[in-house]
Amino acid sequence: MLELRLVQGSLLKKVLEAIKDLVNDANFDCSSTGFSLQAMDSSHVALVALLLRSEGFEHYRCDRNISMGMNLNNMSKMLKCSGADDIITIKGDDGSDTVTFMFESPTQDKISDFEMKLMDIDSEHLGIPEAEYHAIVRMPSAEFAKICKDLASIGDTVVISVTKEGVKFSTRGDIGTANIVVRQNTTVDKPEEATIIEMNEPVSLTFALRYMNSFTKATPLSNTVTISLSSELPVVVEYKIAEMGYVRFYLAPKIEEDEDETKPQV
Amino acid sequence: MLELRLVQGSLLKKVLEAIKDLVNDANFDCSSTGFSLQAMDSSHVALVALLLRSEGFEHYRCDRNISMGMNLNNMSKMLKCSGADDIITIKGDDGSDTVTFMFESPTQDKISDFEMKLMDIDSEHLGIPEAEYHAIVRMPSAEFAKICKDLASIGDTVVISVTKEGVKFSTRGDIGTANIVVRQNTTVDKPEEATIIEMNEPVSLTFALRYMNSFTKATPLSNTVTISLSSELPVVVEYKIAEMGYVRFYLAPKIEEDEDETKPQV
Amino acid sequence: MLELRLVQGSLLKKVLEAIKDLVNDANFDCSSTGFSLQAMDSSHVALVALLLRSEGFEHYRCDRNISMGMNLNNMSKMLKCSGADDIITIKGDDGSDTVTFMFESPTQDKISDFEMKLMDIDSEHLGIPEAEYHAIVRMPSAEFAKICKDLASIGDTVVISVTKEGVKFSTRGDIGTANIVVRQNTTVDKPEEATIIEMNEPVSLTFALRYMNSFTKATPLSNTVTISLSSELPVVVEYKIAEMGYVRFYLAPKIEEDEDETKPQV
Repeated sequence: MLELRLVQGSLLKKVLEAIKDLVNDANFDCSSTGFSLQAMDSSHVALVALLLRSEGFEHYRCDRNISMGMNLNNMSKMLKCSGADDIITIKGDDGSDTVTFMFESPTQDKISDFEMKLMDIDSEHLGIPEAEYHAIVRMPSAEFAKICKDLASIGDTVVISVTKEGVKFSTRGDIGTANIVVRQNTTVDKPEEATIIEMNEPVSLTFALRYMNSFTKATPLSNTVTISLSSELPVVVEYKIAEMGYVRFYLAPKIEEDEDETKPQV
Repeated sequence: MLELRLVQGSLLKKVLEAIKDLVNDANFDCSSTGFSLQAMDSSHVALVALLLRSEGFEHYRCDRNISMGMNLNNMSKMLKCSGADDIITIKGDDGSDTVTFMFESPTQDKISDFEMKLMDIDSEHLGIPEAEYHAIVRMPSAEFAKICKDLASIGDTVVISVTKEGVKFSTRGDIGTANIVVRQNTTVDKPEEATIIEMNEPVSLTFALRYMNSFTKATPLSNTVTISLSSELPVVVEYKIAEMGYVRFYLAPKIEEDEDETKPQV
Repeated sequence: MLELRLVQGSLLKKVLEAIKDLVNDANFDCSSTGFSLQAMDSSHVALVALLLRSEGFEHYRCDRNISMGMNLNNMSKMLKCSGADDIITIKGDDGSDTVTFMFESPTQDKISDFEMKLMDIDSEHLGIPEAEYHAIVRMPSAEFAKICKDLASIGDTVVISVTKEGVKFSTRGDIGTANIVVRQNTTVDKPEEATIIEMNEPVSLTFALRYMNSFTKATPLSNTVTISLSSELPVVVEYKIAEMGYVRFYLAPKIEEDEDETKPQV
């Protein structure tokens, strides 16, 4: 039996909005440590990893490890029926082919039960090794989202270059080129407005903006985003979920066939 | 001659928005008692009844009973040209084939006259008998609108079941089932937030969600909605218009060919 | 060399939004007096004239007169990547086939360079003679925009008639007619809410609403609009740009083939 009660139910809604465009169907894995998901996007280019730790739930009962295959679009449809301040409880039974989402309004005047059919989904869990990154950038998530959106109006790929002074996002397209430099900045009023760069060595990598813009759907989950870069390792774009866990997106850099053609000049 | 001056002109705009999707053309009936309309929707399934009592107008002159056929979409286009705080006057002359909507801004700096062609529309006025209902539910109109919208993302029909404890809205679709229970609740800060159930006997009826969602276009007219239910009588969904009258929608319940198939389990 | 630094960069964004739907490609002319543009719309019916005087820039360096051909849609795409409070600098070099827009965030934490390709555009500069107008109407720009939008839902052309008492906007379409009268009004709380009519002789002219509605895209540039009318002269619709210049639109009146048909009765 499974019963996970999340007081701030809107978090679960935001998680679904963050990942449902990238992943159609996925297994949610439930164990004593937490509620998690790992899935490739439908074109097998990007990887999503979600963790909601058991401590973040008001009530967390998971008698034995369960993997529940869900269609994320359908799940999102159901979660959208919850109110902004509703408590959401996820319920499942061993051997059942359904999962139930219960929504309770704060005043308990309205109780909803949404029962969704589960799916059988083949998936292999990839072990993601801990890695050393050449550079780690922490910056306001809304700033990162605007940069990715702006650059996508000019070109298809972004070159992210990190030096001690700052991080540069560049693109090139038919109408011209764009270079956006965000400087390290720790003297801010609110800690979430800081841009902090930890760098072991300079790095410059190219990524498809289409995926970056998908990742920024997670912006409502966190005020900050952490981008971890290393040559020939996938970039990790991480949004922390307050006191509960994270959504992490992994994307392999593009190997430029003709670098001069696509890489803007510095 | 006809001259109806409505200080809170935005009410008339909201009335049109409430009914124009359901009804294309209709006769507005003007008599000494008020300005009213009764019309079937274009597929002849639902009935709309509107009443704006003469006392609600600042000035109300109607020398003799007049029926004016209007295209509601065109009327809505014209009313949308009024400002949010404008006074609206409806003017007509005996035998004229036009009606004039005059909009006056609160400061009288801007006066608009919109003249619309009338239409000849055949219509029969149905007598709607006063009926005894098994159950009458009064609830916040925004809550009812959200429930109808949410359920329509899952299924096509809604089963409304009333017991003393509360009212349950249920649906079933390809992706699963949904049950939303709203409890009787009279201990609220504002009277319009109450859910009040008057019940003579339990009732459970099935309706097409498409129509229910059309009815909820009237939500801006009133903070509360009253749903009157009786087996084998059309449901009445009523939105009161403050101190002036009402918009009422009538819809026959669906007779389920195979109840087990379409009715969610309780 | 060219370097024009505009502290209130959002002004340039608003200018582009005001003219880009009307004009596809145009030469921006830069001289010691200012940054200007004059262009016909793509159907050669309306004329746009823009002036941003050099005094309005924080820094203005223009070594010699330059004409830079730009695609306004591409330029708008780039300017939209600037932040709401960014400082925008336009940079060019003699003989270069590109122009650079630099955006600086107020805190200098984010610096963007957008480089756009220039185009060769044939254009002739029309001398616009100073003219005497029969009537000049100054009114709130939002009011004028609402009137043009409202009338376009009824008809295709607007008759603008000015008398000492006020200005009347009329149209006629399939569903009926509309007359909107705005009265002279100088006793207002804020000067920008006034409607002021200077009239030498009454005038009544007909214009295509499609163009009028294009002109009102400039509404965010100014709280007021000035409409200068004279029989058989193009109307001038002017939006002043605070302490810097203006955007002016010129449109020839329509000569009615059958005036009775299209001109609403007074």
